[in-house]
Amino acid sequence: MPLTPIEHADASPEVRAVYDDIMATRNVPDVNNFWKMTAHHPATLARTWESLKEVMAPGALDPLVKEMIFVAVSVTNGCAYCIRSHEAAARKLGMTDAQFGELLAVVGMANETNRLAHGYQVELDERLK
Amino acid sequence: MPLTPIEHADASPEVRAVYDDIMATRNVPDVNNFWKMTAHHPATLARTWESLKEVMAPGALDPLVKEMIFVAVSVTNGCAYCIRSHEAAARKLGMTDAQFGELLAVVGMANETNRLAHGYQVELDERLK
Amino acid sequence: MPLTPIEHADASPEVRAVYDDIMATRNVPDVNNFWKMTAHHPATLARTWESLKEVMAPGALDPLVKEMIFVAVSVTNGCAYCIRSHEAAARKLGMTDAQFGELLAVVGMANETNRLAHGYQVELDERLK
Amino acid sequence: MPLTPIEHADASPEVRAVYDDIMATRNVPDVNNFWKMTAHHPATLARTWESLKEVMAPGALDPLVKEMIFVAVSVTNGCAYCIRSHEAAARKLGMTDAQFGELLAVVGMANETNRLAHGYQVELDERLK
Amino acid sequence: MPLTPIEHADASPEVRAVYDDIMATRNVPDVNNFWKMTAHHPATLARTWESLKEVMAPGALDPLVKEMIFVAVSVTNGCAYCIRSHEAAARKLGMTDAQFGELLAVVGMANETNRLAHGYQVELDERLK
Amino acid sequence: MPLTPIEHADASPEVRAVYDDIMATRNVPDVNNFWKMTAHHPATLARTWESLKEVMAPGALDPLVKEMIFVAVSVTNGCAYCIRSHEAAARKLGMTDAQFGELLAVVGMANETNRLAHGYQVELDERLK
Repeated sequence: MPLTPIEHADASPEVRAVYDDIMATRNVPDVNNFWKMTAHHPATLARTWESLKEVMAPGALDPLVKEMIFVAVSVTNGCAYCIRSHEAAARKLGMTDAQFGELLAVVGMANETNRLAHGYQVELDERLK
Repeated sequence: MPLTPIEHADASPEVRAVYDDIMATRNVPDVNNFWKMTAHHPATLARTWESLKEVMAPGALDPLVKEMIFVAVSVTNGCAYCIRSHEAAARKLGMTDAQFGELLAVVGMANETNRLAHGYQVELDERLK
Repeated sequence: MPLTPIEHADASPEVRAVYDDIMATRNVPDVNNFWKMTAHHPATLARTWESLKEVMAPGALDPLVKEMIFVAVSVTNGCAYCIRSHEAAARKLGMTDAQFGELLAVVGMANETNRLAHGYQVELDERLK
Repeated sequence: MPLTPIEHADASPEVRAVYDDIMATRNVPDVNNFWKMTAHHPATLARTWESLKEVMAPGALDPLVKEMIFVAVSVTNGCAYCIRSHEAAARKLGMTDAQFGELLAVVGMANETNRLAHGYQVELDERLK
Repeated sequence: MPLTPIEHADASPEVRAVYDDIMATRNVPDVNNFWKMTAHHPATLARTWESLKEVMAPGALDPLVKEMIFVAVSVTNGCAYCIRSHEAAARKLGMTDAQFGELLAVVGMANETNRLAHGYQVELDERLK
Repeated sequence: MPLTPIEHADASPEVRAVYDDIMATRNVPDVNNFWKMTAHHPATLARTWESLKEVMAPGALDPLVKEMIFVAVSVTNGCAYCIRSHEAAARKLGMTDAQFGELLAVVGMANETNRLAHGYQVELDERLK
């Protein structure tokens, strides 16, 4: 019997505190299933949220670029949930259809040329060492 | 006996034309080993260069963002050659150490949360359907 | 029209013999869909079952540790079927929620640091050579 | 020009504090290149070390099992640096040649059956839902 | 709200021209959802179709071998859509159940031995250099 | 201190018997490092050799096609050792430069379109169900 999402009403105070911080930080009325499932291991929930909050915050890169990088990785790994949730996050931050199209085009090309580089066992150029 | 890079002087006119276009487009005195190896299959060389030129051109996303997405995919796939060559391209376009650091931090986090999403078999939220 | 599972009643004597050994070894009343699908290539069915039986048997590592390693690989590869079936096998062998949580936390971290090592192109320390 | 490891003597106080904690926690005279490279982004260094320390600590799983899971992921992803460094960590915790052999055998089998499950597009058994 | 397939009737002339070429080339009454989705970025649709048409055409390798290689990659990456659509294409070109079974057996073995090679960090033999 | 290859002269009778069978079957004067490393776990050596011998034998697919599928998987996974050794095996069986070029072109395209299918979250067409 697989695990099921832990709703706010059923959560321990420790888990509920993380949920509350997610909702306040993102200004949303509920947290995603991702958090309701990682809540089965409260230490992972807390650590992952703290890390994500730090890593995805505005910095030298703006949040939209960060979300697009997140989508690029998720597409490469074939994680459907992650693609959908971070595509949604990127769109909320202003990603247009044209930008999404170019993002996927780059991801596709990179996955292709990565394999050409592997397949031909290309050696590092002197100027790149 | 593995294949070795095909230098400009030894290339067929068909291959040389692609090399010349790469050098002119990028304003560089020579092409990378990646192209000198794919040149073993001239159709792949020509097609890949035309595709890359189109996909990486300025558009709805700026070239630096595209190069960073390229690095994100290459890091996820563990392609050392691709990481080095596209990190170099991104730095040439202005990527700072701080931006590179944030890029890798996002790539790391995405690879982690992709697996938490898989491991907990998280189901898509209604609002994401 | 995709392939469908081959049930015991419809199986050839060769396939049925493997099913019977799986059921006897695992003390279960039926075999999983994994076996009913690989049965479309009886040599693969027989070889895979013999290999799995040998590899997952108690040895220098106990079966629960082996099942958790199996889950770790399946999560990294994003194989939903494999995650569910080997999570179930691990739970049957006594894996607790806390152990599953720690397992996924390690898998997540390893996937993250693997990419940091790739991204920074970390060179092997002298003491590790 | 790729980044080079940041040695203790050249590190900022912030980075040095993390190095010192790693050396004290692990009772080693120096930190690995992994840390000397992630130090190029001090926030990543600090966050990754804190996370790793928490995740790899003794808990519901013992540290050797955790290191073996780490190796399993790293082998699946083909991260040479990570394989070597975590194989070394596991051996330090007592992993024998026989255990390492069985670990890799399980990792190999899991990667094989993951693809058979994908290839035959196996559907989840009722009893696993 | 995720993107939905763009049907022929709703497509721009640019997209419709690609659809028409796909239908004519493959002699089919409609295009797959893959094309109806990539159509959201017409440049990607056109480039991908032109590339695929060139790469999958009869050449030094016959089309069936090419489709089986396509399936092998898709199974390794766990792309369900790609497995199903290229398995169907291979069967249309004559792939038998026995051939499909052997294909998946090779894909499984390769994924296993790839990890044994990684896990044991096997160095290249002199004769392969 | 990493493991080193086990030479024939230093091998146990059990390992030596496998080496002898590999040399006889392939008509070669020595075995590859892959076998000399897996020999550290004799059961893995024996099982992997028996499996590989069975899977790669002539059958419904000819050995060259099987070797090319092996290369396709190894390129996708980025296993340098596996690419080199199976490229060599394929060339020994007659693979030409043109065939190798087309093989890599297909592998590249498949890795690209796999990600476009993931990125657009393409749903299975009715006719493929």
